[in-house]
Formats: sequence, structure tokens, C-alpha cells
Amino acid sequence: MQPYGLTVDKFLDHAAKWFQDCEVVEAEAGRAVKRTSYAVLRDRANRLSGALAALGMVQGDRVGTLAWNTIHHVEIYYAAMGMGLVCHTLNPRLTAAHLAAMINEAENRVLAVAADLLPLAREVLAHCPSIEQVIILDALVADVQPLGSHRARIWDQDALLAAHGAPVAWGAFDENIPAGLCYTSGTTGSPKGVVYTHRSNYLHTLRALQADAAAITAQDTLLLGVPMFHANGWGMPFAAPAAGTKLVLPGRVVDGPSLGRLIRDEGVTVAVGVQTVWLGLADQAEASGETFPTLQRVLIGGSSCPDALIRRLEEKLGAAVQTSWGMTELSPVGTIAPRDLPADASPASGRPIMGLDLKLTDAEGNTLVPQRDILGHLKVKGHSVIERYYRRDEDVLDAEGYFDTGDLAMIDAAGNLTICGRAKDLIKSGGEWINPNEIETIVGAHPTVRHVAVIGRADAKWGERPVLIVETEGEDKDPRALLALLRGKVADWWIPGEVAEVDAMPLAASGKIDKKRLRDDYAEGRIAASKVGR
Amino acid sequence: MQPYGLTVDKFLDHAAKWFQDCEVVEAEAGRAVKRTSYAVLRDRANRLSGALAALGMVQGDRVGTLAWNTIHHVEIYYAAMGMGLVCHTLNPRLTAAHLAAMINEAENRVLAVAADLLPLAREVLAHCPSIEQVIILDALVADVQPLGSHRARIWDQDALLAAHGAPVAWGAFDENIPAGLCYTSGTTGSPKGVVYTHRSNYLHTLRALQADAAAITAQDTLLLGVPMFHANGWGMPFAAPAAGTKLVLPGRVVDGPSLGRLIRDEGVTVAVGVQTVWLGLADQAEASGETFPTLQRVLIGGSSCPDALIRRLEEKLGAAVQTSWGMTELSPVGTIAPRDLPADASPASGRPIMGLDLKLTDAEGNTLVPQRDILGHLKVKGHSVIERYYRRDEDVLDAEGYFDTGDLAMIDAAGNLTICGRAKDLIKSGGEWINPNEIETIVGAHPTVRHVAVIGRADAKWGERPVLIVETEGEDKDPRALLALLRGKVADWWIPGEVAEVDAMPLAASGKIDKKRLRDDYAEGRIAASKVGR
Repeated sequence: MQPYGLTVDKFLDHAAKWFQDCEVVEAEAGRAVKRTSYAVLRDRANRLSGALAALGMVQGDRVGTLAWNTIHHVEIYYAAMGMGLVCHTLNPRLTAAHLAAMINEAENRVLAVAADLLPLAREVLAHCPSIEQVIILDALVADVQPLGSHRARIWDQDALLAAHGAPVAWGAFDENIPAGLCYTSGTTGSPKGVVYTHRSNYLHTLRALQADAAAITAQDTLLLGVPMFHANGWGMPFAAPAAGTKLVLPGRVVDGPSLGRLIRDEGVTVAVGVQTVWLGLADQAEASGETFPTLQRVLIGGSSCPDALIRRLEEKLGAAVQTSWGMTELSPVGTIAPRDLPADASPASGRPIMGLDLKLTDAEGNTLVPQRDILGHLKVKGHSVIERYYRRDEDVLDAEGYFDTGDLAMIDAAGNLTICGRAKDLIKSGGEWINPNEIETIVGAHPTVRHVAVIGRADAKWGERPVLIVETEGEDKDPRALLALLRGKVADWWIPGEVAEVDAMPLAASGKIDKKRLRDDYAEGRIAASKVGR
Repeated sequence: MQPYGLTVDKFLDHAAKWFQDCEVVEAEAGRAVKRTSYAVLRDRANRLSGALAALGMVQGDRVGTLAWNTIHHVEIYYAAMGMGLVCHTLNPRLTAAHLAAMINEAENRVLAVAADLLPLAREVLAHCPSIEQVIILDALVADVQPLGSHRARIWDQDALLAAHGAPVAWGAFDENIPAGLCYTSGTTGSPKGVVYTHRSNYLHTLRALQADAAAITAQDTLLLGVPMFHANGWGMPFAAPAAGTKLVLPGRVVDGPSLGRLIRDEGVTVAVGVQTVWLGLADQAEASGETFPTLQRVLIGGSSCPDALIRRLEEKLGAAVQTSWGMTELSPVGTIAPRDLPADASPASGRPIMGLDLKLTDAEGNTLVPQRDILGHLKVKGHSVIERYYRRDEDVLDAEGYFDTGDLAMIDAAGNLTICGRAKDLIKSGGEWINPNEIETIVGAHPTVRHVAVIGRADAKWGERPVLIVETEGEDKDPRALLALLRGKVADWWIPGEVAEVDAMPLAASGKIDKKRLRDDYAEGRIAASKVGR
């Protein structure tokens, strides 16, 4: 058989040749502001590689990006990866100190920045001597402000392309070289870098395109509601050109009204993002009465999604909801619920797609027997699963080559996965384990509850005891009443003895509830909880 | 990222773990005679690897199979490939001499044979000293007849499994080693071997599973109407377990009544095979009035399928037809028409799916500019496309790494491929080219025409002249009248001056019309043609 390197530049080449007129659309606050085609995007990205080469970048160098979902961001993705550089996506919602630490560990030589993130970039750069070139992705040259005393040269991307753009040969390297770098969110510890290779991204893409997975086609229009700085944007910047799918990039703003407008204006058929994004859209649809006739499917990931919420979304959006589960360390998709599930099936987070395997172990790492209908520690193995973190010596696999996700999970008889919380969130009370996730699922199903978290507090007698923390909406606002929901559904000793209401649940940069901060806030008295019995 | 070899044994492992109860059904003449599950099939195939090892087989050894679409055949596929042997599928419709030549070139050590093919196998073996072990796939031991004077030891597969079956570790080898061997049909020259690697088969499978390709899912039931000895059975013995799809194997008989019964009995949703198979089913449906309520899609490949035939099939079978194009050298799928094509689109043979690229050249190999709406020689490139034939020294790629398919083709503005005949079937008349395929397409659309072929005959004045050969049905049987169909649609000088009717069009073992034999029969006077004007 012919030699054929599994390199991601081939996706854009394929789109440019076979779907040359297929559109990529960029929006600002729900209004399309820019359109291009895969053919033009490919040409620009390829010549941008030439410009990066002219700036002295060589295979293996890291290019940081601090940007939203825009056409220029897609261009820099492919410009870097296509020539063998490493595209290091940075989350603009992190602090300057965090970002600087990541850039310094990675020794980025280039930083590509969205114009509206220049103030943040300036803060970051003050601590990042390795950066030699700063590319402003989407500003007129006149807008570019100097970077103070930093030695980096500053470019406007279009001007750089005009000055140094030149076609280069893409993909002339081994498929196992790094293509991307993304740091974990740090909700469960200090951020750690995950390096994606061309091969792992290529195979992840083919996995996503399967009919039982994301299943996008050349007939679809995809709204990318998940940021491109979250684990390859769930791989969609690769999957969309590979399938010849029209790609809609919402820019910075992903609130309900903006996304609703984009879906209607662009005829979006498939939308992907975290559940809070789609909740926002459902709220908007409910308030305005608007509908989305073209929308067929919504893919949800990022955290487990209760059945009641799925039903609400399906009703308000008029589209099928596909739940999924993934992690930065998994490139990121782990499991996905198929789109044509029988009506009576509970999808949970779906089944593993070919190329990923799961197992459940006990806390000591022993494989559980049987593997079905029992709670265990979830371990995963596959072609797009991490072996070791960036710049760490030790690999993070067990003796059988599986990576410990840190999640607790169950797998039903049909092979569907349900995530049951984080192992480190378990609460040990009187020598026995309480799983906060079970309590959260029950309380979270109540219509007035917007966010719910259960944390452990130190307790002299029991070791730890659970505290229920909620953010609610509507009139009926006695959080203590929520405890009644738990009676008969969990053991009595699992029921929290303290309840607190917060105005706004603290969320990490990934959009997940920040339990570490909740625990700190509680310990330091910033959350006032009412004692309830017990 | 984790190490993960792209080896085909992983497909069956995945099915055995995640779709353990999903059925594989085997039929005889349309009646299910055997059922198993992926878990049981995987266990048997794996222990069969152990038995092959016990017989002394080592990585790289070739195992021939001479068998229909049966569960035992799937077992031997995986038993061989899983342990690093090469599964060499043989077409039972070839002559013993042809089969012996292939077995001898490949130096097969094992031959696995369906019980009803033992008489053929005995003929073949007389010329094949390399065979050491013969495995009868599906017979009781008592049925096994001795092989005459051949030294090979003879086994019943179940007895072999009972005697020597033992679990082995699958996939413990490089992904680039050979997994399969299949000879081309020889309609266009002497048969040549094509070697598939684990990697090429794995990537071909992921390509097939895409939503715009074969797109089978865990909700589907697949009827494999294409023989497993034709180019990996179009890859479906890999794709079905990878997707957790119920697999229905029809055995030897694939006539209309048998397939119709199987589709109804097993709730088949997707059926794949060559167009003659589905024509047989459509005839049967028309005659009996039967319907196939579960059938959603029929995938057709093997030869180009006129629009009128597609419409007839869709109407009679009540299912969407997906046309495709492929070759043994392509593993075999090249292009496939998507299932959700807009009603006004002409699918032709579909578009290339990610991982395959096409180009058109002139007869000298120069890339045509533009590449759209112009007839050219079709060249292909990709991860599952041949580089060189088995045991040949020279590779068969052009300077840009493309393989010459030998087909003439056009590509429309939307990227859809239409195959326009074989380059070597072109007829040179008065120094200009006539394309038989264009004439065949027009004549073939007439309802009385069952098969049509246009061949060139030597002509003193013009060099060559076309001869129209048809097999017709119905009452209205003057083949000369068919020429009237051509007037105004092709140049006058393209219109054949001789017409012949044959009782049965000669078909090659692949099911395609055997033009080589037609030319021989004509040249030697076995086809009597009437002269018509000119």
C-alpha cells in the first residue's frame, strides 16, 4: 500500500480540493462578519506557513494562540501544524500569571493574539521572554499598539502574509511529531500540558466522523460553540474540512441570542458545545418563542447532562441531543451517544467509539469483575489518549497501558457510560464513601436549581460531612426544601446536614463548577450555610 | 499519545467487548442456519489462531480461503490476520488452473475450504505442493473426504479447534505487515496480487464508517451480498464489528428470493453488493409484490449504475440506493455517494472520502487543467491504494505517487465522479477515439436490454470499428433497432455498423462483462453479427 502520513494538513487540502467553495463563516455577537471558502482558507494558511518559516520558525517550535473561534484562528492552526510547528492554544479566561506559566514551560516563540485580547497579552508578555514574534490575528495595522519594553516584533496577520507569505510543502514530516499543545483546565490540580500528535489528531478525526459519533457530513452546517482553545475545539476544526462541512465560527460571544441568530441565519444543522451554552439558547428560545427549523442535532460535552435537561433542550431547540464525555487528555472525545438511539434507551454519555477502550477498577487499580452495573474508577486506552504529560518524565498509564481519568463511572449492560463524579470529590463519612455526584443529580433535576454542588466539610465526629450548595432561580427559594428530594433515594446518612445558597456558582475557565474554590470559600467563611437537622 | 497499532484484530476485540451479544447470522439459500455473537466469534477466532500456531504457522505465512460468506470464513479471516498471517481469499468461480497459479505464487501453507468446494479444492491441490494443511470450514468430520495422494493433512475446523485451540495474544506486530492478499479479477490482464496491510485495512474501515460513506451503525443490520473473496468483502467484515452492526452472511446463494427472505427475516437495514444482485432482488419483488419494510439503504458497487436503474431499484426495493466505485487495488472503496444527497443531485459514483485523492490526466500522464467536466484517465492516491503488485519489483505509481486505475472518468463541478469506461476498451477509428462506454450507457437504458457491450473489430479502412453486442429480454427483439437510440446522441461515425445478439453475455468471475472473451469470440466467429448500413 502507498505511503500516507496521517497528518492534519491533509484535512484542509481535501476540503480545498473537493469542497473548494464550501463556506467558513465568522460572526461577532451573532452577526456574520466574514466569509471565506476552504480553498481560500487553505491558500492563506499555507502561505502563512511560509511567513512563519521566513520568521525563522522550524519544525517543533511552539506557536501560542490566544484567540476566539475565528477564521484567522483556523488559519494559524493549520499554518503552524501544516509545517510541523506546535499550535499551543491558550484559554483567554485564565489569569495572566497562569498563561505566562504555560507559555514559559512551552517556550513559545510566537504568540498569535486576537485584537481584543491585546491588553491581556501585554500583561502576559511582561513575564514571557521566549516570545519573539507577536501576530495580531484580526486587527488593522493601525490598531496595533506597541508592547511596551518587550523585545518581540509585532505583526498584523494580513500584513505579515502580504510581506512574507509564500507557498510551502505541508506534511513533510513523520506523523508522530507533535501538532498541538493544550493545558488541562486545572480544576483538579495544577495545569498540565497535553501534546497531540498529527497521528492522534488524524485518528481522532476519523473517529468523530463515524455515523455513530459526531457524524457530520458535506450536507451539514456546523456551529462550533466550543472554543478552539478547549482541546482542539473537540476536534471540529479538523473534522469539518475532512467532511466538507460548512463551518460557522461564533467569535467571542456565545450567548443565547447570538447563537440563536447564527443558527437561523446560516442554516445550522449541527451545533456543538457545553451544556451551559445550550441552556442559554433554550432560555432564549423560551423567552422569545423563536424556533430553529434547520437545527437537527446538538452535541453536548464537558460535563454530565441530566435526562431532564436533555429533554428540556430537545423540546426547546427542536433538535436531537447527543451527549458525550471527554477530557483534554483524550483529544478530547471519549464516548458519544449515537444520534439514532431507540426512544427507550438511556444514552448516558454514550458508548466508546472504535479506537477507545474503557475499563473500571477499584481504588487500588484492580480490574472490577464484572464490568457492568458497578461503580468504579474509569481508565481509558486508545490512539488519542495521553501517555504522559508535557515535559514530565513519568508516564501516567497503569500496567495494562490505561490512563486513569480520575472519574468514577458505571457502564450499563448495553455498554453505555455514566460518569458518576470525580474520585477526588468523594466524601468519606464515618469510614464510608458518599458520592456527591449522586446527590447533585437528584437535586439538579429540580426545576428551580440552576447549579448544584456537594462538597465535604471537616467534621470532628464523622471525619467529613456533605454540604449542599445551590444556585437557584424562580420564586420558591428555600434551598433546605431541596433536601426532601433525597429522602428514600439515597441513604439517610448521605443527606447533607448543611445547605447554602450562592448568588453565582463559581465556574472554572473550562465552564465546570470550581469545587476547589467552593471548598476554600466554605472553609474561610465566605459561604454561609444553614444547618438542617442532624 | 499512547502507542496504538492500527491492526484489524482490534475491530473484533471491540465488538466482543462492547457489542458482545450482537449477532452474526449465517444463511443457506435465504434461511438462517446458524447464529453466533461477536463475543463467541472472537473467542473462537482467537483460539483458532492458537491452533494455527500449533500447526507451525508463523507471522507472514499465507492462509488461502476458498469459501462463501459464512461465520467460519469470518473466523478464519480474523484467526489468520490476528496472529500476523496473511489471509489470501480465493474466488471459487475461477478455474482450478487459475487458483493453483495464485496459490503457488503465494506459496500458501494452509487452505481453508468450504465443504461444498472440496471437489474444486481437490483439483486445485493436485497442482499445489506448498499446501501443508487443509481446513474444512463447515463439515462434520465424517464428511471429510481424503485428498488423494496430496501430502496435506486435512482438518475439520471445529475438530481442529477442539484439538489445538488456545488463546493467543493478537496484534503483537507492526501495523504495516500484510494482513490480506487478493488477486485482481483478470478481466483486464493476467491476475495480479494485491497485498493489504493491517494499517491500510484499518484506515479503510474508518473511512467506510463515516457518515458520508457506508455509515453503518450499531442500530443497523447489514446484509453482506458481496462475497468475502472480493477485495475484503468491501471491508465490511471489518466495518461491521467496528461499528457493532449485526452482520447477515448469505452463504453461497445470493439470488433474489433468498436475499428477499433474509432481509425480511433478519430485519436488514443496509444491504451491499453488485448491481446484478440487487437487480435480481428487484425482479423478485416485482414478480411477487413483496416489500422490505426494514431496508433503508442499498450500497451498489462493482460497475457503474445508470440513473434509470437506480430509480428502478429505489422504487422496487423501497430503499435509498448509494452508488460507489472501487477496485481491488483500492481495498476496494474509492468513492461513494452520500446517503442524504439532495433530490436534484446526480450522485454518479460519489465523491472521494477523506483519505483518497483523485486526479485526471491525459493519455501521456499530464494532469488535466481544469480537472472538472473533462474526460481523463483516472489516477488515485491514498492510504489504502496499492503501491506495487505482489511479488513484482516495480511500483505502479506515477511521479506524483498516483496509481493509474485504467479507468476513464469525469468529475463534475461538485466533485462527483463518473466512470466512463476502461482506457483499454477505447476504440481507435480513423485516428480518433470512440468510447464504448458512452454507447453502452445509451443502449443500456432501453428496457429490453439486459447487458450491452461495445467492442472494437479490426477494420482495413478505419483501423477499428465498433460492434454492438447485446443480451435482450422481452418480445421486441430486433437489436438493430437499438442503433436508432444513438442517433443525435453520439457522432454518426461512432454508431456501430455491426450488431450481434447473444443468449448470455459472458461474465468474468467478478460479475463484470468479459470483453476479452467477447473479442476472442467475435474474432473466431462464435458471435455472428449483422451488418447495418455503413
